[in-house]
Amino acid sequence: MSDPTRSHGTRRAQPSAMPRDLMAGDAPDAAFAARVVTLFPEAFPGVLGQSLTGTALRDGLWSLATVNLRDFGRGRHRKVDDTPAGGGAGLVLRPDVVAAAMQAAAGPGPNIYLSPRGRPFTQAMARDLAAGPGVTLLCGRFEGVDERVLEHFDMSEVSLGDFVLTGGEIAAQALLDATVRLLPGVLGNMASTEEESFSDGLLEHPQYTRPAEWEGRAIPEVLLSGDHGRIAAWRRKQAEDLTRKRRPDLWAARDTGD
Amino acid sequence: MSDPTRSHGTRRAQPSAMPRDLMAGDAPDAAFAARVVTLFPEAFPGVLGQSLTGTALRDGLWSLATVNLRDFGRGRHRKVDDTPAGGGAGLVLRPDVVAAAMQAAAGPGPNIYLSPRGRPFTQAMARDLAAGPGVTLLCGRFEGVDERVLEHFDMSEVSLGDFVLTGGEIAAQALLDATVRLLPGVLGNMASTEEESFSDGLLEHPQYTRPAEWEGRAIPEVLLSGDHGRIAAWRRKQAEDLTRKRRPDLWAARDTGD
Repeated sequence: MSDPTRSHGTRRAQPSAMPRDLMAGDAPDAAFAARVVTLFPEAFPGVLGQSLTGTALRDGLWSLATVNLRDFGRGRHRKVDDTPAGGGAGLVLRPDVVAAAMQAAAGPGPNIYLSPRGRPFTQAMARDLAAGPGVTLLCGRFEGVDERVLEHFDMSEVSLGDFVLTGGEIAAQALLDATVRLLPGVLGNMASTEEESFSDGLLEHPQYTRPAEWEGRAIPEVLLSGDHGRIAAWRRKQAEDLTRKRRPDLWAARDTGD
Repeated sequence: MSDPTRSHGTRRAQPSAMPRDLMAGDAPDAAFAARVVTLFPEAFPGVLGQSLTGTALRDGLWSLATVNLRDFGRGRHRKVDDTPAGGGAGLVLRPDVVAAAMQAAAGPGPNIYLSPRGRPFTQAMARDLAAGPGVTLLCGRFEGVDERVLEHFDMSEVSLGDFVLTGGEIAAQALLDATVRLLPGVLGNMASTEEESFSDGLLEHPQYTRPAEWEGRAIPEVLLSGDHGRIAAWRRKQAEDLTRKRRPDLWAARDTGD
């Protein structure tokens, strides 16, 4: 029944977690609607179809639709790119092809182009996105995208960090994972997003669990004391010390802020 | 022949791109050997099996092996986690379980735990890793990993950026994508890694391609001039202006550096 040569066979096994092809119908009615323009729609949902984000996808807490850029390519070979004006290595995605795909993907929320040239993605951006109706993500490939189409769609350029990826697909998945887990009902225990790294400008304190002694290393005594005040103070100090040592930039930003 | 309920059916269609289960035999002999300890081995290779990184994987320019943390879980339910010592939300991965999986995954190169508490991943780290024999990656889940096992294996903690993911799997894929594309022979045209963002501390200049005029927007005249000196100067100025405006932190680091 299934064709093992189809690269997206996996998603057929879990039809409700399968990204919808926007060209095939209307977007589903969900709290947060993500639309992704990509040359590799079969890469979605990928990791997002697993674990908590996957359960939330199947439960309709968010929706994911892909638009295949290739469907808008030109000519018999569905060409999506061409050589850079002015010369240079690589290929640049054509503005007309990208525009047609972006129009097909249009929906509520901002248009974001994932690119190492963008502003670095942060937990604050994830929170802003999670509070909104959705997002349209454009995954780049090759040398990039024609600048005119970025201007035309007023796209925000967002970077995952100061490194270069083969394409925007993994960056899109990271952005969606960080955003979706903040949607109401996705994490079992909402308290866990309040104590974690960056929620108060600090890295998270160290964690320990059973066994109490392992390979000659014991859990710090204070954590076994049952004294909630002492435990909270110890964790706070550990978080502050770690942040100061490992991320002086975060520490400084926090110091001069609020 | 294939069982549509198996979640990793995709990889069977491309057997050479299928991540090896390290428990099943020896690691393949490849230039760069990546080993990933994860609760979601079926998420690999994911996007890494596509495009240039996928071709390089099939060509043996790098290898990817997964170790399923669940295989080392305790008891009938293969439990991998327990409640945090000192109380709090969520669950912490047990040191004994993680240690057994890390021992099974052992190989050349550093041990890296992907965590929002880590040092931010950079293009310089990708270059260092790509120059080495490989890497062992531990993907976290839940509230984190018992601190003692991180100390025991002298793990570097590396963060993808200042945001929190459901788990380390997407971060591991980003780290591997950024690293693998720098391995010799992976990108068709090696020149393209020299001009891109961060290679000289600057964001990349804007790119344009055909058509010459689109939606009333023309390609900047200089790029059509054929004057290579003027084109290079224009691109340099654009890259500098963009970096100064969008990433004053990068610009400042560059200013005071070399």
